[in-house]
Amino acid sequence: MPPPRAWIAIAGPGDAAPWEVEAAEEAGAAVAEAGCGLVCGGLGGVMEAACRGAKEAGGMTVGILPGDDRSAANRFVDAAIPTGLGEGRNVLVVRAADAVIAVGGAYGTLSEIALALKAGKRVVGIGTWDIDGVVSVPEASAAVEAVLADLST
Amino acid sequence: MPPPRAWIAIAGPGDAAPWEVEAAEEAGAAVAEAGCGLVCGGLGGVMEAACRGAKEAGGMTVGILPGDDRSAANRFVDAAIPTGLGEGRNVLVVRAADAVIAVGGAYGTLSEIALALKAGKRVVGIGTWDIDGVVSVPEASAAVEAVLADLST
Amino acid sequence: MPPPRAWIAIAGPGDAAPWEVEAAEEAGAAVAEAGCGLVCGGLGGVMEAACRGAKEAGGMTVGILPGDDRSAANRFVDAAIPTGLGEGRNVLVVRAADAVIAVGGAYGTLSEIALALKAGKRVVGIGTWDIDGVVSVPEASAAVEAVLADLST
Amino acid sequence: MPPPRAWIAIAGPGDAAPWEVEAAEEAGAAVAEAGCGLVCGGLGGVMEAACRGAKEAGGMTVGILPGDDRSAANRFVDAAIPTGLGEGRNVLVVRAADAVIAVGGAYGTLSEIALALKAGKRVVGIGTWDIDGVVSVPEASAAVEAVLADLST
Repeated sequence: MPPPRAWIAIAGPGDAAPWEVEAAEEAGAAVAEAGCGLVCGGLGGVMEAACRGAKEAGGMTVGILPGDDRSAANRFVDAAIPTGLGEGRNVLVVRAADAVIAVGGAYGTLSEIALALKAGKRVVGIGTWDIDGVVSVPEASAAVEAVLADLST
Repeated sequence: MPPPRAWIAIAGPGDAAPWEVEAAEEAGAAVAEAGCGLVCGGLGGVMEAACRGAKEAGGMTVGILPGDDRSAANRFVDAAIPTGLGEGRNVLVVRAADAVIAVGGAYGTLSEIALALKAGKRVVGIGTWDIDGVVSVPEASAAVEAVLADLST
Repeated sequence: MPPPRAWIAIAGPGDAAPWEVEAAEEAGAAVAEAGCGLVCGGLGGVMEAACRGAKEAGGMTVGILPGDDRSAANRFVDAAIPTGLGEGRNVLVVRAADAVIAVGGAYGTLSEIALALKAGKRVVGIGTWDIDGVVSVPEASAAVEAVLADLST
Repeated sequence: MPPPRAWIAIAGPGDAAPWEVEAAEEAGAAVAEAGCGLVCGGLGGVMEAACRGAKEAGGMTVGILPGDDRSAANRFVDAAIPTGLGEGRNVLVVRAADAVIAVGGAYGTLSEIALALKAGKRVVGIGTWDIDGVVSVPEASAAVEAVLADLST
């Protein structure tokens, strides 16, 4: 397997609605199919669905965990990074990614959107916060296209 | 001087408009007059104005800096904490505060709002992001009242 | 009170022997008498003794705490910074200081010694780890002299 | 490839002597042959040699970088995590590992040894700092055996 040509973060809630799970899984698969690695917060909900999608499509997944315990990672994470930083790990999820796809989400996701935009990284959103600078798309496949278009330029 | 009864963060842009500077200075003064300590990101603009207001009212100021260099702090910071964490220091500004007052601001301020709300802390805003959970007030004196009302309960 | 002319960290165990407490209190007082601010990990033992010494000599004290809870700070800390970073806060204690005085101590203190030496900062030790680069002195007053001699050059 | 049964950090200097490079490469290979993942600081010298050894033995490698730039990772890193934390990333290398093998090294390595011992993790050393608590072994194969013996209990 060649190295990923880019790393894309998928951000979203650990306690996810069915539509968020579905969108995250599709986005994770699309990330892997595009030859990119997936980075996320490593837990359940959107994070688990994104990892499952990426692994089923043959991709590589990194989970940057808030706690000290590796076993909190969902089972689709290849490399689990326990940080002990709590929500501070959101900073690292954003730094480890070249671009961010936000799926739904609450305040934790909003912090990742804000940190990514502050760092000048592309943020694509599916049903997430309506923040100036977020490229809103209707579905997962469009999200990955929007991210990659930007990274190619 | 007795120890502060609470620590309030004032968040906002380093490159501030005149109305932001004015509001931040008033909020900083009100924080000090209420017997609270001020924590901020330690740089210029809203951060400097808030510190100036707090010092002129006899308060204590902490500046949590993004870089490694203490001399980046504005001259109204009593305790400058160089962190070398870049925007990651926003996590620490929020953790070091019992509540947050956001004045104007862009993505950095938005990240502090999101992190504070995620942590369950009161966020009061003056002309800032319209985020569900932020208590919007028209002026600085009302901001401090709103913050303190919550901390007393 | 004029701003501190430098910030000195005093590092050492939270569970301290009587000689460590005595040395830390003397070192804290000497730091304050030299017009410097004191930064430490904010908890008990050496940290508390150093803060007590500094406050009794009219100095200013910062405590960078491992947990999220400000109330864990000893009562001689002027500005308590809860970080939620666990032992990762040792990195911040070192970054916030211009030089480090290590008093006794175990692995946590050793990590601060190592991080300070790595950052090129002067480390003076009293009864602490015998590490190449640490300037060993027999007592607290000599420690502060050794630190200041270096900062003046 | 099944998930790693444990993650082992290999710590050592980026500017390494020939014996350090050789020991690190052997240790990296032994880590992979034991079915473990390798975590390191992601740069050159000991870190690169350990990753090269692990990859040649079919293992998985994570590099937790000090800077913001993924391209600083050596080419044997599968998952590069740019952190922007400077030496603060040493905290994360230790947290992401179940045990640490230290090869030679200077102050950065010493900080990782101290942080790992503070966290109660096994530290095995090859020609490194003589610190109470470090299990000293003469060569790389023995290092991995010593680490695994401890993790099995």
